Parts: sequence; structure tokens; C-alpha cells
Amino acid sequence: MVYKKITMIGTSDDGFEAAVDDAVDRAEDTLNNVKWATTENLGVEIAEADGREYQAEVEIAFELDE
Amino acid sequence: MVYKKITMIGTSDDGFEAAVDDAVDRAEDTLNNVKWATTENLGVEIAEADGREYQAEVEIAFELDE
Amino acid sequence: MVYKKITMIGTSDDGFEAAVDDAVDRAEDTLNNVKWATTENLGVEIAEADGREYQAEVEIAFELDE
Amino acid sequence: MVYKKITMIGTSDDGFEAAVDDAVDRAEDTLNNVKWATTENLGVEIAEADGREYQAEVEIAFELDE
Amino acid sequence: MVYKKITMIGTSDDGFEAAVDDAVDRAEDTLNNVKWATTENLGVEIAEADGREYQAEVEIAFELDE
Amino acid sequence: MVYKKITMIGTSDDGFEAAVDDAVDRAEDTLNNVKWATTENLGVEIAEADGREYQAEVEIAFELDE
Amino acid sequence: MVYKKITMIGTSDDGFEAAVDDAVDRAEDTLNNVKWATTENLGVEIAEADGREYQAEVEIAFELDE
Amino acid sequence: MVYKKITMIGTSDDGFEAAVDDAVDRAEDTLNNVKWATTENLGVEIAEADGREYQAEVEIAFELDE
Amino acid sequence: MVYKKITMIGTSDDGFEAAVDDAVDRAEDTLNNVKWATTENLGVEIAEADGREYQAEVEIAFELDE
Amino acid sequence: MVYKKITMIGTSDDGFEAAVDDAVDRAEDTLNNVKWATTENLGVEIAEADGREYQAEVEIAFELDE
Amino acid sequence: MVYKKITMIGTSDDGFEAAVDDAVDRAEDTLNNVKWATTENLGVEIAEADGREYQAEVEIAFELDE
Amino acid sequence: MVYKKITMIGTSDDGFEAAVDDAVDRAEDTLNNVKWATTENLGVEIAEADGREYQAEVEIAFELDE
Repeated sequence: MVYKKITMIGTSDDGFEAAVDDAVDRAEDTLNNVKWATTENLGVEIAEADGREYQAEVEIAFELDE
Repeated sequence: MVYKKITMIGTSDDGFEAAVDDAVDRAEDTLNNVKWATTENLGVEIAEADGREYQAEVEIAFELDE
Repeated sequence: MVYKKITMIGTSDDGFEAAVDDAVDRAEDTLNNVKWATTENLGVEIAEADGREYQAEVEIAFELDE
Repeated sequence: MVYKKITMIGTSDDGFEAAVDDAVDRAEDTLNNVKWATTENLGVEIAEADGREYQAEVEIAFELDE
Repeated sequence: MVYKKITMIGTSDDGFEAAVDDAVDRAEDTLNNVKWATTENLGVEIAEADGREYQAEVEIAFELDE
Repeated sequence: MVYKKITMIGTSDDGFEAAVDDAVDRAEDTLNNVKWATTENLGVEIAEADGREYQAEVEIAFELDE
Repeated sequence: MVYKKITMIGTSDDGFEAAVDDAVDRAEDTLNNVKWATTENLGVEIAEADGREYQAEVEIAFELDE
Repeated sequence: MVYKKITMIGTSDDGFEAAVDDAVDRAEDTLNNVKWATTENLGVEIAEADGREYQAEVEIAFELDE
Repeated sequence: MVYKKITMIGTSDDGFEAAVDDAVDRAEDTLNNVKWATTENLGVEIAEADGREYQAEVEIAFELDE
Repeated sequence: MVYKKITMIGTSDDGFEAAVDDAVDRAEDTLNNVKWATTENLGVEIAEADGREYQAEVEIAFELDE
Repeated sequence: MVYKKITMIGTSDDGFEAAVDDAVDRAEDTLNNVKWATTENLGVEIAEADGREYQAEVEIAFELDE
Repeated sequence: MVYKKITMIGTSDDGFEAAVDDAVDRAEDTLNNVKWATTENLGVEIAEADGREYQAEVEIAFELDE
């Protein structure tokens, strides 16, 4: 059994969980067997966003097909 | 005054705060004088959970009785 | 273009996002051109608070006037 | 579901895996529901051992009873 | 000359080297010019495995074709 | 031979060594075979103390009975 | 809006900037929407190069198409 | 309640505590509501000092007025 | 003798040294007794810049007047 | 009693323990009073080796003669 | 001007400063132009010492002769 | 095959690459088989230098003779 990890940054106006989900959802669009994710960095974009955009950098692990 | 620190992982379907509270609540079941907690890691269990299970690894500090 | 970074700790009874916003709002009281913020530490004050006080240590970047 | 983590150092003349197992075995003597372990440090004691003693500092996670 | 790095987790019942090789072998199935690998984390899955499953998270570097 | 590590915070008005000793002494109240300690963090409590209270977070290793 | 991050190592006889550009240029060959890069490691290959080969390991962030 | 953190380096011929106090004292000259400090680095200046000058880099937290 | 440290990010189209100098020059506009600087992060802004904008996050130490 | 630490990288086709021993053995060729070693990095050389060459970067501590 | 850094561990029954000085003194026995030292780790040996032996791992920088 | 690593700090008025080369050149004065170097820290000396002195702390690896 071998897993691969990729790093993605999700964004949301609602909060950190929504930003994490944004990244995991996008990964699940193209990958099956997504297993777990860990947050590497949490931040807030202010100047380039209307209001506050919550950002979550996550490492997403998925199992490779045999 | 001496404090001790233990490491626990709380889980919740609702979000990171609920996962942190899950761990702190469990610690307060058996410990008095719980003082503060710091998050070490935040993650999401996907494959083994129905939907998304938010996880928070926290270091919990409590004061030891004299 | 030069940015400066300061470190602040926001607090809130509601959650980590509210604690982050607390710090960013306070920075924007006295600084213009606040650009982004990154969380350094997330924690919970228990003994000194009524209930749980969520805390977020954030690094806030703002652009210095020419 | 709440997990707790403890830190132990196992030792063995055979190698790092045996040192890891030494720590996990000892944990399983007194804990049920041991779930996983991660190595924090690997080293070798030389002066105080006959030959080489391999040491593994591991963080062991176990599930707390409800 | 440009290299790319990917992160994979290999698993094995035999030990850490076998787990590292498991990940490198799988990378070499689809990549040529694999150059070197460095271990990021070593751990043991206990509850979800029969016996002990050694896991090795490795960063694998390979050279990109011109 | 298996060791276990616990994390404690000692405090003292005299200095960092006294704060380290405070934690080690408290550990030796309930544990035999305490082997060594390493400092993780050194700090000073100011607002909540009369004068300055030096604090030392230490990891204390002790040998488990066979 | 979701970003993905990849890790690449660029090389150059001229210096670190040229090595960073080498990696970013190669990424832009196959990716559109490359947004920013951060250096993870800077080094110099000596034995395997004629003279000195400057190397830059960079994390490159690009925006994923909706 | 919002705190701000600043980084200062105190120096003393007497020892690390005196160097920490040197920085905290200087901060308290211009700031009220200084709450706590954590040491980031401890070192010794040798060549530029007569004898040994102990240095302590500390992060000092103070509460901002509402 | 007490030093204070601030964190600034300089930018330049020319390279990392120029970006470091950009930050140090700006600090010297308003501070005397600037002593040394250490780079914390080096990066490249791509999307928001014409061409490549090299960025250097630096910690700048200056001596406080007695 | 004063110790000194040096950093060495051992290599072996057999595994990580053999690579650690390779470095410690070489240190003991020229140093007496070698006390202990800790692994800093474990990796695998692939392209430059026939098959897989396991590498262990270790910090080796030895006691200096009075 | 080129400096070299070595890592030494000093020990003392008196405290951390004395342990740091122990290492720096020993370095100055054989090296001239010792410039500065930074502490990497502070700890206490308990079992192998009579009472408490304070230990300081320090990185010592000295200037190489032209 | 065993490698040894040493830590040196090179300096130059020209830039970081020149500072890295300064350290590597000095190592090659007394060592053969220098293989590669990695930068640990980059900084700028300001007060003690005429203008800006760029400094590069590098870890230099060389192969030991059999």
C-alpha cells in the first residue's frame, strides 16, 4: 500500500474549516482514495480580498492504485 | 507551583474549536486545575469517517497539587 | 515597496477566526495598508477566562508608505 | 473519540525497528487501544552499552475509553 | 538541469528500509531518472494492521527531461 | 530497558536552574529512576507574579521498571 | 480559488536567483497561472559540477482552473 | 483583549536571568501592561566584550489599551 | 546595552541582495544604530509583478538608546 | 567534563543501522571516548549507486581529554 | 574573513552559565580568535551525576587565520 | 564511503554567492574531496563593516579518505 501527498491551498470567506474543505473537495474532483489531510499553514488575505479571505494550506494524502 | 503537560487529540464533525474542546473536556473529566491548551496539529480524517472528521492535537497544561 | 510585520495575539469566546479578526481589526485601527496575516499559534485560555477563550497569535504584514 | 499521546524510548541491540517495538510492546503491557506510533528521534548509545544499543524515541497514540 | 520532488509514504511489515523501498519502487514504476530520496517521517501503524506495519514518508527527487 | 518522558513546568523567583530543579524535584516525589531532563522553553511570568517568576518547561526521562 | 504547490530544484552556474528562475521557468513551461515561489533550500554542488553549480529548492504555487 | 509581542536582546555580565531582566526592564520603561516574556535564544559575546557578556533574545508580550 | 529586532520585507527586480538592502535602507531611514540583519525567507512574486520580483524577509537588529 | 560533537554521513547497501555504524566506526578509528550518536537525516542514494545506498547523517559525541 | 563553528557540551554543578563557560574555556585552550557562542540545548544529568549536573550544548564561532 | 560535515561562515561585500564561495574556497585550502555545501543562514553585518558585509553560514560536506 503506497500513499502520495500533495499540497494545496483552499480559500473561503467563511473560515478555516471551509478553506480546508475547499482544498480537499478540489482534490477529490480528480483523485479517488483521498485518506486524510493535515493543515500546514492558516492565514488571512486582506488587501486582495473583499473583506477577509481565510486560507488553509493543507497536505492531502491519497492511496495510489496498485 | 508546578504544571504538567499532556498531549491529547480531540475529534469533531463540527470544526477545529469543537475538536479542541473535545480534548479539553475529556482532560477535565479526570484532572482539576486545567489551565490552558495550545494546538500542535490540526487535520481532517476523511476515509475512516462519515464525511469529514476535524482533529485537533492539543497540549494541555494543568497545575499539580502541592 | 517595503512591508513590515508585527506579531499580535487576538482573543475571542467564539473561535479561532474571531480571535484572528480581533488582532487584525486592532492592527487596522492604527495602521493603513494591512495586506495579510498568518497564524503562528492557536490556543485556549481556560483558568483565567469564564468558559473558554480562544487565542490566535498572528503575524500581520502591512505596506510602509514610501 | 479522544486519543492520548505518550513519549517512550525503546532500546535494542538489534536495530531501530526492534527499539520501536520495545517501546510499543511496553506501552501495550498497560494500555489497550494503542493505535499508532511515530519516531521522534533515533540514536545509538555507545559508551554505556556493550557494543551498540539502538534507541528509538517514539510518540505512541492510544484511544481513551469513553 | 531541473529536479522535481514528490512525497510518498511506503509501507511494509519488514521494516523501515523495506517501507522506503516500497515508496521508491512505486515512484520508479511511473518515473524515470529517480535520483535520491530522504525520509521525512518514520512510524508504525498498529490498530489498522495485522501486527506492525512500518511506514516511511519519503521525499523522492527525480530529474525532469529537458 | 524502556524510558518514559513527561513534560513539566517548574517555577522560581530565583532563576532558571531553580525552576528546572522545581520540576525535577516534583517528578522525583512520585517517580523513581529519574535519569535526565532537557529544557524545552524558558520564560518569565511578569503580570501574574510579584516581581519576576522564572519558568522552565522541561522534558524529564525516567526508566520504567521491568 | 484553490492553489497547488509543487517542489522543484533549479540549478545554475550564475547564482541563486538564476537557479530559482531555472525552476520557475521550467514550471511555467507546463503550468499556467504560476503565482509565487518561496526558497526552501539554497546549496552548491561542487564535486559533480565543473566549478560551482548553485542550486535552489523552491516551492512554486499556481492557481488551479475552476 | 489584544496583546502585542516585540523582540528584544538584553545583555549582562552576570548571567542569562540578568540579560532577560535587562530586556524586560527596558521594555517596561516605555510600555505598561507587560505580561510575560519567552527566551528565543541565549548566547555569549566573547570577542567584543571584556570577559563574557551573556545575551538573551526574548519575545515580550504586553496588553494593548482598549 | 539592549537591542530591538523588527521584521521587514524588501523587494527588488534585481535579486535577493537588493531586496535585503531595500529593507535595511528603509529601516535606516527612521532608525539609527542599525547593527545587523538576518534573512528569514527568500521568495519571488510572479503574478502580481511585471517579470519577477525578488522578496527578502529580514530581521533587523538595532541598538536602543540608553 | 567536556564533550565535542561532529557530524558524519555513513553509507551502506544493507540498511540504516549499517550506515549509522559505518559513520561511528570511522569516528572510532581516530577518536577515543566516543559516547553516543543521534541520527539527523536518513536517506537513499539511487542514481549514483548500484541499487540502493542507504545513508545516515549522524551527530557523534565524544569526551575530550582533560 | 572566514569563521568556523564547532559544537561542544560543557558541564557544571553550578548552573547553565558555568556549563557554557566550561565549553568556551575548553575551546579557548586550543583555539585563538574565539568570537561568540550560542546555546543549542540546556539540560540536567541526574542519574549519572552526584546531585544535578547542568549541561549546555553550545555552538562556538572562531575566526580562521588568513 | 564516509563523509564529514563542517560549518563555516564566509563573508563578502559582493553578495551571498561570493560569501558562500569564500567559505568553500577556504575549506578547499585544507581539505580535498569537498563534495557539496548547503546554506544554513544568510545575513548582513552592518555596524561592524564599511557598508554592507554579506555573510553566509554553510555546511560543507567532504569525503574522508578510506
